[in-house]
Amino acid sequence: MKRILLCVEYDGTVYAGWQRQINGLAVQQVLEEALSQACGENVTVTGSSRTDAGVHALAQHVHFDTASSIPPEKFPFVLNNLLPPDIRVLTGREVPPDFHARFLSCGKTYTYRIWNARHASALYRNLCWHVPVPLDTAQIRSALPALIGTHDFSAFQAAGGTAKTTVRTLDLAELKQENEKLLTLLVSGNAFLYNMVRIIAGTLVEIGLHRLPPDAFSRALASGNRLDLGMTAPPHGLELTEVRYPPLAFTDPASLRWHTP
Amino acid sequence: MKRILLCVEYDGTVYAGWQRQINGLAVQQVLEEALSQACGENVTVTGSSRTDAGVHALAQHVHFDTASSIPPEKFPFVLNNLLPPDIRVLTGREVPPDFHARFLSCGKTYTYRIWNARHASALYRNLCWHVPVPLDTAQIRSALPALIGTHDFSAFQAAGGTAKTTVRTLDLAELKQENEKLLTLLVSGNAFLYNMVRIIAGTLVEIGLHRLPPDAFSRALASGNRLDLGMTAPPHGLELTEVRYPPLAFTDPASLRWHTP
Repeated sequence: MKRILLCVEYDGTVYAGWQRQINGLAVQQVLEEALSQACGENVTVTGSSRTDAGVHALAQHVHFDTASSIPPEKFPFVLNNLLPPDIRVLTGREVPPDFHARFLSCGKTYTYRIWNARHASALYRNLCWHVPVPLDTAQIRSALPALIGTHDFSAFQAAGGTAKTTVRTLDLAELKQENEKLLTLLVSGNAFLYNMVRIIAGTLVEIGLHRLPPDAFSRALASGNRLDLGMTAPPHGLELTEVRYPPLAFTDPASLRWHTP
Repeated sequence: MKRILLCVEYDGTVYAGWQRQINGLAVQQVLEEALSQACGENVTVTGSSRTDAGVHALAQHVHFDTASSIPPEKFPFVLNNLLPPDIRVLTGREVPPDFHARFLSCGKTYTYRIWNARHASALYRNLCWHVPVPLDTAQIRSALPALIGTHDFSAFQAAGGTAKTTVRTLDLAELKQENEKLLTLLVSGNAFLYNMVRIIAGTLVEIGLHRLPPDAFSRALASGNRLDLGMTAPPHGLELTEVRYPPLAFTDPASLRWHTP
């Protein structure tokens, strides 16, 4: 039995999210079916992040156990022949038997894309939130530093989160003007609460529309009140861009259990 | 009766190209149906460029005549409510009655996207040609200057072209490394032959794979022989990015007939 770690990219447009469920086709299910076919045994996978319906991933990380003799680095080639083109496996490697894609993750980066132009984009319609009113990007940028550091982000979660603690550390919150119409928000931290990045993106847009004050984040961090923040931005602007693990997790994960959020 | 010029963006993935035809749904047909509904009369449109099936447009230009009282600049709002999300009208303006979207165009820019990585992209799969073998970009760049200037591009066309002359002037042919995996080729000229940009892109990839010599373009320009060039790159990497008109075309097109290729 070997434990394998895959890096998986997907366009979440047509899927009911990452996690296998009854009412809709999940990315996990499609991947498990391809893996079971490739390995000739029932395979169950564990993802680093349970992305919502419509959310994309450039680098979802996924582990599973298999008795298959397929060399770990060959999994992308084998699986990409079985998977639909909106799911691609980019890398495969063997990891220690107690490696865990979710619990051992020590950091993630998300990208949130905003198409800030009068009319929506035809080409990038599934990857961006269309905001037709011009945003005050200077105002948005002035709001970002309040997010950086270790805070109790209890106001920054939707109902349904299962986190034991709401303390998180963000080390990056940056807005980039990619071109005349496309704004991208990059957020990096040790871990994220349920809907946290979408609440940050929705609040930033309301700050950029002058519907919320630029100190909304500081207020919400102090009050713990979800109502001090803005709307939850729609899922299709969001992408899981990077998942980080401590280097030793690939050799001795047992020594790194304290990284578990 | 007024003549209106629209700028239209579309994702060509599901369409049988720009031009209305019997065996497949064309972008032109979808646009004409929305326009006819909006204007309450039968509307026929003329596009600046007949893009092939799977080819995209960031800025297709289209003219039509109408007796409708819709203000020209309101057409995007009216049409975007009637069109599917993979077709967006970005601008509308009135032009003189003898303006012609195709014949008065004095320049176009195309973008060709190459995803140069071992595995295809899930997110950008419909916008890029996947080339899994690493390309020698220095070799590709060394081949580009030969294209610049006024030449007889008779070798650079597919059967089925209707051009009376094959002399064209290119003023830009540039390869950009957008990120680790994405290469974009920008080509700008006064006009293009049928499949010309896709033949250029296919030849450049073969040059980057060392299957063709870096002077393939010069040879083909001298010989006029299509066989001196490489394959025709697939349509889904191609985008019509810009269409240019002489400024006077918007006021006095009759004086500009000599621009007609």
